[in-house]
Amino acid sequence: MRNTRLDSIPRDEALHQLLTAVDFHPEKEEVSVSNACGRVTSHPVIAERSMPPHASAAMDGIAVQAEMLQGASLEKPVLLREGRDFIYINTGDLLPSAFDSVVMIEKVKVVDKDRVQVDEPVNPWKHVRQPGEDVAEGEVILSARHTIRPVDQGVLLAAGVEQVSVLRRPRVGILPTGSEMVPPGLPLERGQLREFNGTVFKSLLEECGAEPDYRGVVPDRKEILSQEISRAVDMCDMVVVNAGSSAGSRDFTPKVLQDLGDVLLHGVATRPGKPVVIAVVKGKPVLGLPGYPVSAYLSFDWFVRPLIQKWYGLGRDSVHVVSARLNQDVQGKMGAEDFIRMQTAYVNGEYVASPLPGGAGVTMSVVRAASWLRIPQDVQRYHAGERVTLELVKPLEAIRKTLLLAGCDDPLLDWLGAEASTCCPGWSIQREVMEEEEGWKRLRNGGCHALVVYRRAGTPDGFVRICIAERDMGWITGSTVSKPVTCAADLLRPGLRFINLPPGSGIRERIKRMLEAKQNVGSVPNGWERVETSHWKAAASLSEGTADVMVGPYSVAKHYGLIWRPAWVEPLDLIVPVTVWEETAGNTLKKILLSQAFRSAAQRLGGYNLSQMGQLV
Amino acid sequence: MRNTRLDSIPRDEALHQLLTAVDFHPEKEEVSVSNACGRVTSHPVIAERSMPPHASAAMDGIAVQAEMLQGASLEKPVLLREGRDFIYINTGDLLPSAFDSVVMIEKVKVVDKDRVQVDEPVNPWKHVRQPGEDVAEGEVILSARHTIRPVDQGVLLAAGVEQVSVLRRPRVGILPTGSEMVPPGLPLERGQLREFNGTVFKSLLEECGAEPDYRGVVPDRKEILSQEISRAVDMCDMVVVNAGSSAGSRDFTPKVLQDLGDVLLHGVATRPGKPVVIAVVKGKPVLGLPGYPVSAYLSFDWFVRPLIQKWYGLGRDSVHVVSARLNQDVQGKMGAEDFIRMQTAYVNGEYVASPLPGGAGVTMSVVRAASWLRIPQDVQRYHAGERVTLELVKPLEAIRKTLLLAGCDDPLLDWLGAEASTCCPGWSIQREVMEEEEGWKRLRNGGCHALVVYRRAGTPDGFVRICIAERDMGWITGSTVSKPVTCAADLLRPGLRFINLPPGSGIRERIKRMLEAKQNVGSVPNGWERVETSHWKAAASLSEGTADVMVGPYSVAKHYGLIWRPAWVEPLDLIVPVTVWEETAGNTLKKILLSQAFRSAAQRLGGYNLSQMGQLV
Repeated sequence: MRNTRLDSIPRDEALHQLLTAVDFHPEKEEVSVSNACGRVTSHPVIAERSMPPHASAAMDGIAVQAEMLQGASLEKPVLLREGRDFIYINTGDLLPSAFDSVVMIEKVKVVDKDRVQVDEPVNPWKHVRQPGEDVAEGEVILSARHTIRPVDQGVLLAAGVEQVSVLRRPRVGILPTGSEMVPPGLPLERGQLREFNGTVFKSLLEECGAEPDYRGVVPDRKEILSQEISRAVDMCDMVVVNAGSSAGSRDFTPKVLQDLGDVLLHGVATRPGKPVVIAVVKGKPVLGLPGYPVSAYLSFDWFVRPLIQKWYGLGRDSVHVVSARLNQDVQGKMGAEDFIRMQTAYVNGEYVASPLPGGAGVTMSVVRAASWLRIPQDVQRYHAGERVTLELVKPLEAIRKTLLLAGCDDPLLDWLGAEASTCCPGWSIQREVMEEEEGWKRLRNGGCHALVVYRRAGTPDGFVRICIAERDMGWITGSTVSKPVTCAADLLRPGLRFINLPPGSGIRERIKRMLEAKQNVGSVPNGWERVETSHWKAAASLSEGTADVMVGPYSVAKHYGLIWRPAWVEPLDLIVPVTVWEETAGNTLKKILLSQAFRSAAQRLGGYNLSQMGQLV
Repeated sequence: MRNTRLDSIPRDEALHQLLTAVDFHPEKEEVSVSNACGRVTSHPVIAERSMPPHASAAMDGIAVQAEMLQGASLEKPVLLREGRDFIYINTGDLLPSAFDSVVMIEKVKVVDKDRVQVDEPVNPWKHVRQPGEDVAEGEVILSARHTIRPVDQGVLLAAGVEQVSVLRRPRVGILPTGSEMVPPGLPLERGQLREFNGTVFKSLLEECGAEPDYRGVVPDRKEILSQEISRAVDMCDMVVVNAGSSAGSRDFTPKVLQDLGDVLLHGVATRPGKPVVIAVVKGKPVLGLPGYPVSAYLSFDWFVRPLIQKWYGLGRDSVHVVSARLNQDVQGKMGAEDFIRMQTAYVNGEYVASPLPGGAGVTMSVVRAASWLRIPQDVQRYHAGERVTLELVKPLEAIRKTLLLAGCDDPLLDWLGAEASTCCPGWSIQREVMEEEEGWKRLRNGGCHALVVYRRAGTPDGFVRICIAERDMGWITGSTVSKPVTCAADLLRPGLRFINLPPGSGIRERIKRMLEAKQNVGSVPNGWERVETSHWKAAASLSEGTADVMVGPYSVAKHYGLIWRPAWVEPLDLIVPVTVWEETAGNTLKKILLSQAFRSAAQRLGGYNLSQMGQLV
């Protein structure tokens, strides 16, 4: 029923095996130069015409024979008659063969309607563009295997080339698998999932110059999968099968590939991305990539992208890196290379980075990631404060315009970033949820731009405190609970499944104190150790009935239509170092806090008192 | 008849004036997520569904109630019956509400067809993905003004978003002008020129997310230009008029724009790119960009790109830079910021760069440029050996795979690079033509990978010499000359217009010696000081009749159908430092020299003896 264990082939070795096992002989095709941008030349391209095609004026002025101006001087100016001795000429105009030089208009003194006077000599071919000055007929203008850029289209047309021979695009079959998967556009029933990796692959393939062929979802049946892979191999130059590549009972891909062709390897020594299967069927590469999105996109980069580069005979992409200071320890797993998604920002003149939470299934962490930290197989841990090299996902310019906020969670904080770019072009906000003490450490270390706190206390020297809002916190229950919860003691009701916030969080401590005040020392609600870091995620569990009760802001309860009973009101303040506050980052924060868009968002969410919004407190 | 002089507004100030003078209010439109890649969100996007939508298995195994396994141990394993106590479940499957945990398949011992045994307890919600673990309904998943990437499409679909609201693309009118200009695809007559900047603009606009509207060539008539600009302003969000933006007699653009709207400025303090005119007509930006390609593409980057970024509310692009050592002095012009096109390579562990020859009209220099050197207005000169910061045009990876050859010119050398990438993916070859002595200096300074010489002499220690070919040199004349030239003395024939190579070149010295040998000391051919650096360009002049005679390789004469009479045979050798020869760069050179593609190219060109091709000599 189950496959054998996965291999642990190093990634480089796996790629080498793949690239040496396949050989491509792409056909060429002719396209018009106007449509050739992004295509790859199949042969060197030779200029078919010189540019300029003929001698032509390089200046506005008059065309003359240099000989006629020999000896001209201020004392002995030469008089020229239009039509006979000269003609007026503009930059780019053909130089008639009767002339060999151009005198700049600034040096021409008009005598009358027909005659001008010039008082200095001119060298032959002065201010004349010789034929072929830009491109000479016969010259090689583009080499073979060159990706045509806009400026190349210009040169091609200039050189008389109107049709250019390019390599055919590789056709890549995309085969998402899974009986529960439904392609975009079709309705979903309970238990079904939207198939979205296929759409991501489609766009990634287009970006790297391939022609994607999304072949629809294949159900989890071995014989159908076999049939569909066979068909895809016949129709395409390479095939990507998504999910079913691991060693589970429904992971048919490796077995099917073994029957259809040669499996080169099954499993690479990386996390995420381990369960990859690589095979060659009828001489064509067929890759089974893991289904978890983070793994899927990483393994696409590792194996599919290089295949397309091999098809075109192109070099590898440039990787842009940045050196950053780690905000916290980052742990690798033994026996595998690790790829960690990182938040990255530029605080007080230094790049800093923290790992993003979440496993291989958390697509949002890839959306939020600004860079990747690669931990080689033989490294176990990078330490907080250490400088590491990060591979950029977002452009450096975007990272320099990222505000990093640490501290407590609230849905309103999402909206700080949601419209940041509308009032401050290019700016974005990233958040890291952590308890207050940790957050203060982070802030003092220059690991973030600002800290969000829910307690109004004295503000230390060197920092400013800005009010975001006051939020209404309450007891939230879902439809699984018939009687609303209205106080801490209610949380102890038998059968109630509570979702908590992580240890050290303010709400958690407050509830504990409330329970103690009611002589409930030592008793904790059922589920006290079950935590979610975000109010949204906790509310999603209540809404789905996998938990019964939580404590949180009015806004999330309202969104999910959950029952909310008031518990307390607390401020939501930003603490910002003066050094940050008085610089661009601080100005940006100020602008966003005071923007109408942010105020409207808070009103829409509900449960916030905005009377002090954006004010120093 | 002529406009006033041009302004010299600093580039930054000009951009600031432009950006503050216009205000955009782009409409939004709905697109399906599958087609949304590259589009810019108009509003923050909120998750419409949680992902996973329901609790689901995070592992392959069995779904159980954690309670049932309380107290399970090796000694007291718990027996479970399928259907009643557990069900088999795969990663991603919906967890039925009767269960709250998953036991990994590895920990399940199968007893018989219906029953399994588990010998350890499990925590509630173990190996269960909670609803919303990836994305919770209500969360902000993308901020406003965010350019949608493939991975964002994944998150949108995962979060139940099938249609996304994006900003309409700005429509940009392209108006090439010039009565002599003919759009691509139409036949050219003598004196007419192919209009190609428009195609380049079209592709550049598509690259930055705009919708180009190529409106055809406008002849040099003021009233037509006025009409066409008016129409374009009505149809588009911004308009680019190409050429006619300077101060010549046919430069109508500034005058027309003054009549139609407000001219903000005319002329920026940069070279190339000075003659730019910026106006606002009916609230829409209209830019007149210079016609010379180098100026046109630079000013597009300076003014059109930021306008489109303003339209979308995006930040500026990241500029990638590299620090390189200058191979030679680079001179700026007083009173203006200069932009110099640079060749850039990586030699012996160091980036080196040299300016590319050619004025603003030389499109090929933009094609060849790997980077730009910006010389600020207040800097007059950078010196050879100085380290400068270059803005990259080509990716760094491509620069690291560029072989830089100095030395003499020959058409065959083009073909070294033309198919380099076919045998060595990603590699390219750039050349700098210079006399031998200069070339030796360059080579010894580590300013290039190899030197091409036409004289076979002793090879100094630390260098190797490889034969490329022997070339047949000859006396070349065009159809303007009735009697072929067959010796140096013939060059002195009255009326013959000679094209020479630059001072210091070997051919030039050889001819001089030949003339001296024939007692022609002191006499030089007519045109002795008229030089072209490339045999192709000299031949183009002969072919067009602007010169009569040159000395050069058989290959160019053959291509142009010129008359060629043998003069001498000389080797074409490569000198390579041993340090380079034994590394990747040298191996690449070797591979190319020995490739069948290069040999075939030499045979096609004609006039080369290939018996020693690729051999150490």
